[in-house]
Amino acid sequence: MLLEKHDRELMKKNNRMLVFDMILKCRPISRAEIAKKTGMSAASAGRIVADLIEFGLVKETEQYSSGVGRKATMLDIDVDAFIAIGIHVDRNVVKVGLVNLDGQIIAEEKRHMRKEESGPSAVADHAADLVRRLLARHPLGSSKLIGVGVGLPGIMNTAEGTVVFSAQLEWRNARFAKELEARLHLPVVLDNDLKVKALAESAARSIGTEGTTALVSIGSGVGSALIIGQQIYRGANNFAGEIGHSTVDPNGRLCECGKRGCLQTYITDLAMLQEANQVKPVSDMNELLEMMRSGEHWARNIIERACTYAAVTINNVVCVYNPDTIILTGEFIEDHAGIFEMIQQKLAELVWGPFGGTFQVVRSQLRDKSVMIGAARLVLQQRFDQGLDISI
Amino acid sequence: MLLEKHDRELMKKNNRMLVFDMILKCRPISRAEIAKKTGMSAASAGRIVADLIEFGLVKETEQYSSGVGRKATMLDIDVDAFIAIGIHVDRNVVKVGLVNLDGQIIAEEKRHMRKEESGPSAVADHAADLVRRLLARHPLGSSKLIGVGVGLPGIMNTAEGTVVFSAQLEWRNARFAKELEARLHLPVVLDNDLKVKALAESAARSIGTEGTTALVSIGSGVGSALIIGQQIYRGANNFAGEIGHSTVDPNGRLCECGKRGCLQTYITDLAMLQEANQVKPVSDMNELLEMMRSGEHWARNIIERACTYAAVTINNVVCVYNPDTIILTGEFIEDHAGIFEMIQQKLAELVWGPFGGTFQVVRSQLRDKSVMIGAARLVLQQRFDQGLDISI
Repeated sequence: MLLEKHDRELMKKNNRMLVFDMILKCRPISRAEIAKKTGMSAASAGRIVADLIEFGLVKETEQYSSGVGRKATMLDIDVDAFIAIGIHVDRNVVKVGLVNLDGQIIAEEKRHMRKEESGPSAVADHAADLVRRLLARHPLGSSKLIGVGVGLPGIMNTAEGTVVFSAQLEWRNARFAKELEARLHLPVVLDNDLKVKALAESAARSIGTEGTTALVSIGSGVGSALIIGQQIYRGANNFAGEIGHSTVDPNGRLCECGKRGCLQTYITDLAMLQEANQVKPVSDMNELLEMMRSGEHWARNIIERACTYAAVTINNVVCVYNPDTIILTGEFIEDHAGIFEMIQQKLAELVWGPFGGTFQVVRSQLRDKSVMIGAARLVLQQRFDQGLDISI
Repeated sequence: MLLEKHDRELMKKNNRMLVFDMILKCRPISRAEIAKKTGMSAASAGRIVADLIEFGLVKETEQYSSGVGRKATMLDIDVDAFIAIGIHVDRNVVKVGLVNLDGQIIAEEKRHMRKEESGPSAVADHAADLVRRLLARHPLGSSKLIGVGVGLPGIMNTAEGTVVFSAQLEWRNARFAKELEARLHLPVVLDNDLKVKALAESAARSIGTEGTTALVSIGSGVGSALIIGQQIYRGANNFAGEIGHSTVDPNGRLCECGKRGCLQTYITDLAMLQEANQVKPVSDMNELLEMMRSGEHWARNIIERACTYAAVTINNVVCVYNPDTIILTGEFIEDHAGIFEMIQQKLAELVWGPFGGTFQVVRSQLRDKSVMIGAARLVLQQRFDQGLDISI
């Protein structure tokens, strides 16, 4: 019986997040409804609920259920009972948020950094300082901290907590989780920014474990991520989705990586601005857009071509991943509905017949909060995986 | 307790194939070794083994275990105890094999079909006829049939047993599984040819559920498939991996699908032969290769360009899926080691730094048998998923 417990733990682990999300999205909800909606047995759902209650994640609230009018014990969640710290590290900014169980940011701080402060140790100093300030200014009261999640651009070894390589941060083999743990004395998990962003967006949109969501990000870089049933698809080395250096044209423009015709030489903001500056001085993407709108054909030319390659990228992601939802993100796309529409028009011409109608393309819901929220969600998932006593 | 049984069934289902494969690859093997190698509890491994024995899949064989010299009850598999029928339908040929539990073809038949016999009903007639002949010529004796699996080119709805669309077969919404079931009175499961091919190759190479294998096929068409932990990755509609119509160049050559610059206009045999015939009459790929070898520069030009795009394709598949193994398949590549080497050389130049050394590229092991073997494996997986009484 002792050994059987091991298996039951494994079952429960797989279903904890599912039951928790179900209560979160449908609260108040009864045990019977949970079992029905998740397809679990009533006994399993009941056992998981009992554990969630034991550890203070879920509470009972007696009230009339809406359907039959009969009194039933309903389940609710005190979304502020546990808080995760979500950190977003980018090229020149660190953002820190206190994120509740519902994925809401209850307080946040950010700090811009100069180039010379952008090493792993300096960034860890800044991040730890922001966390301390945030906690000083927003005392948690009865809420309990469950850990720290960090989203960073580049290739991450999540198991070891290291930044393997980040072109944006110019880091290589940085043990950033350890750096932060030493400063904060809290467990730290890190992952690629787009992977946690996709996790946050997918969790915000859907209930349950079904569904396949792909995120495509086009901005300072190009990347993608895949969420299969609320889990990040990582591949063999957590490199999956790194499409910035997929090849568009083997005879194309030289990329900073030394290869020719990488996707990121076609559609990043930098690539577009470099082209624009061959014609006249253009300082940012909004200026380029203004020029297009004022009738400058060369500006339209650059933007239309980038939108065409954005559509090609989405089409190619659709072909390999076959998602039901594509989340398109990136500052320029998020700020300008017209750009999003232009990409969608071009995509409609590119999609192969059988894929027509199999997916929706949507814009990011959580925008510049999504990496913090996703990093916090990753903490919650990890704590659920490890066991239910999620407070530290 | 009755309800708890439901959960135990689910656990067992997930681990049955794993334990079965472990015994298959490591036989004779003890229960303790299985538990150790799979990471399962001894109780779980023991329960699954008991079920496998009950249904005649596994047998006990008392003998000395190699390590400690102590007498131990070892487990073995009578690989011919159960037989699945694997069928490979292609543009102008149907192949049928009797496949044992070890993925070995113990007998096979094939038939070439003329264009006018290539409708779903006519192909079902041919396939059913071949099955009957095969069973008449190779009586199964004590072996039991567990069902029929079919691999076909195109987009398949495996849940409904329909061919949604196949450009190669010129079929659309064909209820092919039903057609075959009506003729054979056996359960039939069908899937995309490359997906089952990848399943067979992956199962032949590895033990256990770890690993991420991507298959890339370049021949009469271009396609890919992904196996995550011995399971086919299907995406939302089982369309995942359909890269033939991913876009290489939005201003490129017109494809038969009506779009411009699809990958398949660059590297299929047909595309290469069409180009070659602009110079001089070339009837097949071997002739083209001969011309290259005899020093014809235009022939080298065509083949090198195709190898470059093959390398681009593999690189792009690596970027999205991050597999540990790429299986490269296709008749021309399988027949000519020189072509495989040329693709590998070009790939080495294309792979982005961090991906270097993260994957191996290998050629198909099972070659023209792989679709039959994979289709049979799909039958076995499905029967394991449904319950252990796999005979019909």
